[in-house]
Order: sequence, then C-alpha cells, then structure tokens
Amino acid sequence: MDMAWVLDTLFTLFSFTLIILMVPGFAMLEAGLVRTKNVTAVLTINTMIYIVASLTFFFIGYKLAFGGWDGSSMSKYAAFLFQMAFVGKTVNIMSGGVSERTRVIPLSIFTIFMAGFIYPLVVNLTWGADLLKDTIFDISNMHDLAGSTVIHSTGGWALLAAILIIGSRKGKYTKRGIKVIPASNIPLVVLGALLLWIGWFGFNGGSVGSISSKNAADTVAFVVMNTNNAGLVGGLIVFILSYLTYKKFDITMVLNGALGGLVAITAGADVLTPVESLTVGLIGGILVFYAVPFFDKLKLDDPVGALSVHLVNGIWGTLAVGLFGKADLFSQIKGIIEIGIFTFVISYIIIFIINKFIPFRAEEEEEIEGLDVTECGIEAYPEFKRTF
Amino acid sequence: MDMAWVLDTLFTLFSFTLIILMVPGFAMLEAGLVRTKNVTAVLTINTMIYIVASLTFFFIGYKLAFGGWDGSSMSKYAAFLFQMAFVGKTVNIMSGGVSERTRVIPLSIFTIFMAGFIYPLVVNLTWGADLLKDTIFDISNMHDLAGSTVIHSTGGWALLAAILIIGSRKGKYTKRGIKVIPASNIPLVVLGALLLWIGWFGFNGGSVGSISSKNAADTVAFVVMNTNNAGLVGGLIVFILSYLTYKKFDITMVLNGALGGLVAITAGADVLTPVESLTVGLIGGILVFYAVPFFDKLKLDDPVGALSVHLVNGIWGTLAVGLFGKADLFSQIKGIIEIGIFTFVISYIIIFIINKFIPFRAEEEEEIEGLDVTECGIEAYPEFKRTF
Amino acid sequence: MDMAWVLDTLFTLFSFTLIILMVPGFAMLEAGLVRTKNVTAVLTINTMIYIVASLTFFFIGYKLAFGGWDGSSMSKYAAFLFQMAFVGKTVNIMSGGVSERTRVIPLSIFTIFMAGFIYPLVVNLTWGADLLKDTIFDISNMHDLAGSTVIHSTGGWALLAAILIIGSRKGKYTKRGIKVIPASNIPLVVLGALLLWIGWFGFNGGSVGSISSKNAADTVAFVVMNTNNAGLVGGLIVFILSYLTYKKFDITMVLNGALGGLVAITAGADVLTPVESLTVGLIGGILVFYAVPFFDKLKLDDPVGALSVHLVNGIWGTLAVGLFGKADLFSQIKGIIEIGIFTFVISYIIIFIINKFIPFRAEEEEEIEGLDVTECGIEAYPEFKRTF
Repeated sequence: MDMAWVLDTLFTLFSFTLIILMVPGFAMLEAGLVRTKNVTAVLTINTMIYIVASLTFFFIGYKLAFGGWDGSSMSKYAAFLFQMAFVGKTVNIMSGGVSERTRVIPLSIFTIFMAGFIYPLVVNLTWGADLLKDTIFDISNMHDLAGSTVIHSTGGWALLAAILIIGSRKGKYTKRGIKVIPASNIPLVVLGALLLWIGWFGFNGGSVGSISSKNAADTVAFVVMNTNNAGLVGGLIVFILSYLTYKKFDITMVLNGALGGLVAITAGADVLTPVESLTVGLIGGILVFYAVPFFDKLKLDDPVGALSVHLVNGIWGTLAVGLFGKADLFSQIKGIIEIGIFTFVISYIIIFIINKFIPFRAEEEEEIEGLDVTECGIEAYPEFKRTF
Repeated sequence: MDMAWVLDTLFTLFSFTLIILMVPGFAMLEAGLVRTKNVTAVLTINTMIYIVASLTFFFIGYKLAFGGWDGSSMSKYAAFLFQMAFVGKTVNIMSGGVSERTRVIPLSIFTIFMAGFIYPLVVNLTWGADLLKDTIFDISNMHDLAGSTVIHSTGGWALLAAILIIGSRKGKYTKRGIKVIPASNIPLVVLGALLLWIGWFGFNGGSVGSISSKNAADTVAFVVMNTNNAGLVGGLIVFILSYLTYKKFDITMVLNGALGGLVAITAGADVLTPVESLTVGLIGGILVFYAVPFFDKLKLDDPVGALSVHLVNGIWGTLAVGLFGKADLFSQIKGIIEIGIFTFVISYIIIFIINKFIPFRAEEEEEIEGLDVTECGIEAYPEFKRTF
Repeated sequence: MDMAWVLDTLFTLFSFTLIILMVPGFAMLEAGLVRTKNVTAVLTINTMIYIVASLTFFFIGYKLAFGGWDGSSMSKYAAFLFQMAFVGKTVNIMSGGVSERTRVIPLSIFTIFMAGFIYPLVVNLTWGADLLKDTIFDISNMHDLAGSTVIHSTGGWALLAAILIIGSRKGKYTKRGIKVIPASNIPLVVLGALLLWIGWFGFNGGSVGSISSKNAADTVAFVVMNTNNAGLVGGLIVFILSYLTYKKFDITMVLNGALGGLVAITAGADVLTPVESLTVGLIGGILVFYAVPFFDKLKLDDPVGALSVHLVNGIWGTLAVGLFGKADLFSQIKGIIEIGIFTFVISYIIIFIINKFIPFRAEEEEEIEGLDVTECGIEAYPEFKRTF
C-alpha cells in the first residue's frame, strides 16, 4: 500500500536525521575528552570521517553490503541514507580511542577501507546480501537489531588492532604508574554524550525498519523505551559505583556508563522485555566501570573509553539476547567470534600495512606540541591562556 | 482506525525526541550561567536528574499519575515516553535555581520524591487519573495544555522552598549591596536556551495528543506557531527594555525573556488567538525583566532566574487563559493556588527533612573552592588559566 | 484527501524544526569564528535576528511574499512556520560577514527591512504571489528549489553592500599585508556547521512541499541524499586542496567547503542526478577555497567567509541547474541578475540611509575593546585569562 511506503520513508528520514546528530555528538564528546592541544585535530578527524566514510559507502560499500538499492518497502534513497548514517560510527569508535597521537592522513586511508570494505562485509554477512549463506560461516541468524556487534564491536575490534600498532600516548604509562590525563572541556563531553543518546533513538528505533502498521509502530516505541531505559540504568549504576568507590561523582564515567548501556541494548531492544533491557543496561554500566581501569592496567591507552563502551558492551549486548533466550545462544556466540576475528585480523593487517608507508603515529615532538598545530595549523582556543 | 494510531505514535515519538533535546538544553544553559568552578557539578546534577527522575517515573510515578498504561489511541510505550520526558523538567527548574551551593546526594534524594510522588500527584489531579474527582479539591477543569502550572510552577514552588531552606550563595548579598556574579560561558547559555526553545515545539505541540485528523494537525501547527511567537515577543520586549534601561543588550536577560514567554504560552497555546498569544508572551517577557531584580531584592538567590521564568510565568500563563475568557477564570485560579500550596508545602517538608540528615548546602570552604572539585573531583576547564 | 493533508502538515512541522536548528547553528558557527571579545555581540545579534526577522515576517513579510495564508494542501500555520524559518537566514548571512565591527541597533533596523520588504519581494517574484507576472521582469520560471538565489545570494548581495559601506575590521589590511585573525573556539565552529548541515535536510527536503504520495516521498529522500552528498564532496575537495596547498588540514575551510556545496545544491537538488549533484558540490567546495583569499585580496573583510559560501555558491548553484540542462539557462541567469541587482541596490540604499543616522560601525576604541563590553556589557568568557 502506498501510504505505508510513504510513512516508512518519512519515518526513516526522521531516524536518519537523528543519527546524523551523532556526528556532532561524537565530535563534541571526543573534543571535550582530549587535551586542549589536540582538540582541533580530533574535530578535523571527526569531520573527515563523516565525509570520507559516507562517500566511500555511497560509491562502494552500500552495494557490497546489500547487493543493490531496494525501493520496494520505502524510498530507496531513504533506505540508503539510513544505512549510510551508520558507517561513520565504526570509524568514530576506532579514531576516538587512538586520539592525541594519530595523524589525519593514515586515518583517512583506513576510513576508506573500513567504509568500503570491512564494515560492508560485516553487514553483508549479517543484515545484508549474505555472501556466505548456507556455508559453515553463515551468521545471518545472529540477532543484532541495530549493531551491538555489527557496528560497535566492529569499531571496537578495529580500535584494539590500532592501539596495538600505534601504542599509548607519551607519558601515559610510566614507572611511577598511570598518569591521569583530565578531559579539557566537560560541557562538550556532556553535550556530545547527550546528542549521541538522542541519536540512539533513531539508530535503534529506525532499525525496526517500518512504522506503518500498528504492530510495527508499537515495536518502534517499545525499542525506544528499552533503549532509553538501558542508557538510564547504565548511567545510574556508574553514578552509584563512582560515589561508593571514590566519594565523588565522575560525570565522564557516568556518561560512559550510560553509553555502555545504550551499546548493550542495541542488539536486543526489540525482543527483550523491559526488565531484561534494564538488566542489560545495568550490567553494561558495571562493565564500563570496571573495564576502563582494566584496559589501563593492560596499558591499552584509550583516551575516550571506547574499548569499554563499544567493544565490551557490543559483545555483552549480543550475548545477552541469547542468554535471555530471545535468540539462539550459539548463533550469537558464533557471530561475535566470527566478526571479531574477521574484523580484528583484517583491521590489523590493513593498519599494519598503511603504517609501514605512512606512520599513524605522530612524532614525539609533534605529540608534545599537540596535533592541532602540527596537523591542522589551528589551535582550538588560541586566546585562552593555559595553566601550563 | 489503524493509520491514526500509527500516525499519532510517530508524532508522539517525534515530540518526545524534541523534548529530550531539553536535557542538553537545560544542561548547557545552566553550565553557561554559573561560575567556572561549579560547571561540572551543574552538569552532573542535570545528568543525574534525567537518569533518576526518568527511572523513578518509570517504576512509580507514571502509574500514580495516570493509573496505568494506555494504548488505545497510540502505542502505550510512546505515550509513556512522552510523559516521562516531562518529569525531569520540574527538577531541572528547582536544581538550577539552587546552583553553586547545593550537593548532589540530597538533590538526588529529592529528585526521587519529586518524580515518584509530588509531580505525579499534581498530574493525577489535572491531566491524569483524578483521585479527587468530584470533591471540593477537583481541579481537573483547569485548562493547562502543556504545563504552565503543572510543570513550570510546580518546579518553581519547589525551588522557592529550596531557596528558603538552602539560602543564598556566599557573598551574593552583602552590606555593600548585591554582588553581580557573571555567567562564565555565554555561547553555552545561548545554545542551551535555543535547544530548550526547539524542545518546546515538541512539548506544546505534542501535548495536543494527536495529529491524525485534519483538525488535530491544524491545532498542532497552530500551537507551535503561538508557542514560537510568544517566545519571540518575550525576547523582543526584554531586548528593548534592556536597552532602554541600561543602554546595553543583556543577552542572558533576553533569552530569559523568551523562555518566560514560552512558559507563559504553555497553558493556553491551543485556545488563545495569535494576538492573545503575542500578548501573553509580551507580558511574560516584561514579568521576567522586573521579577529578576525583585527576587534579588528579596534576597532569594536564583543564579539562573528560574523563579522569574518558571514560577512567575507559570502562574501568569495559566491565569491568562482565564483572563482571555478561554477557560473558567475561577478554575484557573483554584488550580494555581491548590497546586501552589500543595507543591510548596510538601516540597518544603521533604527538603527540610532531607536537609536534617544530609545537608543540601555545601560547606563554606567547599563553596569557595567550587563544587566541581569537592563533589565531582573534576574541573570543567582544567587547562584554562582563570582571571582570579 | 485528509490523510495527505495531515501527513504534509506533520512533514512540514518536522522540516521546520530542523531548520530552526540552524538558529543555534549560525550562532555557534559565528561565535566560534570571531575573536573572544566579540562573541557575546555575535550571539546577541543572532538571537535578535531570529526574533526581529520572524516577527516582522509574521506581521508584514509573509503576506507580501505569498499574498495570504493558504491551508489548501496542509495546515496554513505549518506552511507559514516553514517559510518563516527561512527569513532569518538571509540576515544571518549578512550579519555574519560584518561581524566584529557592527552595532546591534542599525543591524536590528536593517533586519526589519530585510524581513519585511527585501526578502519578501524576492520571494514574491520567484516562489510567491508573482507581482510582475507576464511582465518583462517575470522571473518565476527560474528553478530554485530551496533558495540558492532566493535566500543565499540575497543574503550575500546584502552583505556585499554592507561591507562596502561599513568597511573592514581595524588592522585587517595593513601595509605589511593581510593579518590572519584566528577563530577563537573551534569546537563551536564545528558544532555550528554540523547543525547547519542537519538543518539543510529540512530546508531542501521540506521545500519539496509534500511527502504524501509515493512520488513526493521519493523526491524528498532523493533531495536529502543529493543535498548531503554535495556537502560531503564540497568538504572533501577542500580537505584535499587544503593539504596540497598548506600541508595542513584547515577545518574551518573544510567546513566552509561543505557549506558551499550545500548552498550550491540548494537550487537543483530535486532535478539534478546524483552525479550532477556531486559535481555541483565539488565545484562549490573549490569555489569557496579560492574565493576566500580572492575577497581578501579585494579587501572585502568577511570574517566568516559568507560571501564565498553564500553569494558565490548561490550563484553557481542556480547557474548549474541551467548548465546541466534541467532548467532554461537564460531564465536562471535572468533570475540571478535581476535578484542580484534588486537586492544589492536596495540593500545599499537602505544601509546607506540607516548609516547616516545611526552608524553601523562601532567607534575605533570600541572595536579595539571588543563589542561584548561596549554593546552588551557582558564578556563571553569572563573567567578565562587571555593570551594578550
């Protein structure tokens, strides 16, 4: 029926718009979390990712993922835009975690591979054209509504590969212990995290794929409620844990807890009950709270906590759908492992090769001076006197 | 008809999303208005409110307000989300006005009472299940479209109770007069106010409750137009008054004038004519302009002007619907007074009791050092050298 | 049919809301691009424009443009709101380019003329009531979907007139060459540009005017895709050119390139193919990259690059629709020239006359001190120590 087609097009454009709010969302979050001297570089990288990833997906990735453009249930342009809005996120996750030491050009090259090849193949095997259908590698019956594994873990595995190759920030891990490097602009962190949160309503709600029947519309609203609740409870538990542990309220940690809950619920918001969704979000927050210091102990330097938020909770959320009996647990595990191995290995190889020719890592003196000057020639706040 | 149900669900989810933009809206506005040393604390409190108020409303408040979940005219999850988006606002109004001196924990406890008990009871008597139906206390025929009284005055009365108990900021009112404490970050103030403004379209437009008939859709658009116009004219008059009085354009005052207009039109945007709406907004702006120094004279220290914007204009807007003959004036007055007395008294008692066990007020040396360090252990802008 | 009327009302309100995101968008972009001492003034002017332009359009401009209110195909209030959301943009373009030296009051007076007279007349001749129909000046068959000429060039021509009368910032062009005046807050620049980008989806998508048939919905999605692609490629080419020229990534330039692509595609996003749209955006970015230094050579001081983004690309985009054979090239050229001459001459005269009575230009010592203090009495960041 035409009216359903029209409504789903409108709904998908609305969802697309919400997801694009995540572009400033990631940009502000990461710009707030890094030091003043690297803010412009982080913002440049975020802008580059939206540009390069989206265009690569338009020219190459989308067809590789889905086999072609389809306008049977809604405008094919709306369907494309919605999928295109996702692709940059995987690179955002990766680039955020290697902030403050990584150059723009090699990241741009990796972005092309991620958006044109790695992510589209992951989508192909899960939501898409399914190249390996009916083979032993078929993972198309993993339940992953909006990408706990397909997007968040994919970005997280690529980040892990990148950290292993690029290394930690100068002076982060010393003989005298782990240096705390404080966020430079807390309002930007809060603004960014809240824009991401709002974008998530489009991400998960829009992934239902239709709103044009009573059942579909109810599912969309149910998904948005479960999504929001998981974020709320993920934030709440870190709010409490942070106070119990440090007698202080660590807002960056609370927001990462909320984002962890949101990542975790992304796989199963449509099939989990409200109570299960709250449980998923609660554990998501707890995982973030303990994963952040854990990765620091492993000397995996991740200035924005992306491994804890996206990789750990991407895995947890996908697993949870199986653990709560809403999908075949074995299929969930198989999907997690297959995508994990594929993404990690391929990302490692690509980053390794790029790195041989164009090092990701800035020179030591560049890192000390800050990438804003060396990469961009533009300070983020040139008129404000600094404390050091 | 199914299509109406679907459309109203989509419309309500859209409105919900706009209202959630008010979460970063309030956070940025308040973070910009306070001093640098209290910015992280304000942002932490805003985030806490969204988390604690929403979850409390989910578990307790919603049922108390409405008697249960109803999916007859749209998805029951969408209907819940829309109402849930409102609840935090009442606490935001209250917490903003006691900024720069108030601790996180007692505020969190009060948030539970507000979202689980006070606000739901106010809703119950007005838009909701109506416990006191047909008694002498029945105020269900007060006309209050989206909460001039139910939300804004409720938050304002709770704030008044809080200020009376918590007191003013150290050094605000001295023998030598009232100290002007300037806002620390004007771009955040503007960003926050404009996000609130945009959220208001969802607040008031969505409160029409349906868009699925020609008549309903026309009313929604009419409400959005009247809402916007009242904000515009509320800002305009303060723009003019500010110049006539001081020969300067005080942007924080202009924005508060606009917000005052928006609060005032919230009760009657659906029934007032365009010219009446403009009048309501105009008087709303004037009220803010004169109420801010008036409350300062009373030594009611309200760093963000919440009493003037929300309490005064919540009352004015509700009254105006009656004055313009669009509702029974006596019912409007009765509603204003009953909710005012109820909210003020109960809030006062609850804050008073909490305060006995866990003082709201930070210690003097904590207040001087700033709550960012003492409550959160995180400075908002650690790398920027300060002027004092 | 009623359902179409309802859907188009909802769609137009959604588009309206996106466009209003451009109010904080312009405000943040310009606040980030100017020096710290002029940030509050820029924000005050942006707020003033939204208020004054919208109210003027409500009272005078809308009727002049369209001849009256029409509710035949959707709610007349929604149709009005959508058009009202456009009007401020023309003044934003103009005010941004004369930042850091221009007073609030004369700008406010010009805003009334622009929103009540100049812009409505331009709309009248193109999208509106068509006063000069069937005369030699009839330009109603110029194809300009969402205002490459009608909005962006109109704002640009007014800006050119303003710069010629007001002059350049003190110390910008000296005997020793052109002084680079760096942007004071890069995160605000990025946030603002991205909010504008998102607003553009509503701007161009909403200008299709309907989403209630399969064909209309497909066109809306197609327009949004072409719009986004043109922005992406406009940013990409400047990203590359900036690196090839300076070995640095100039993020403010990249974003202006993206905005240039967005301006250029605004005329023809509905009729150009995807490849043509990409070409239009690509050339749009290139034009910005070379136009910015070109205007500097002409000593036309435009702190935000508005001439390059809006005037040059407004012309280019309108021309392109003809060059690609999607509209009569002669009609496009005629429209560009007629609107250009009309807007430039009238704006010049009005600014000239206002300037005789109330000088636009701040006094030299005011400009040195910064307009925040002299116009608003409020510093943007009073607690941050400055580097000079």
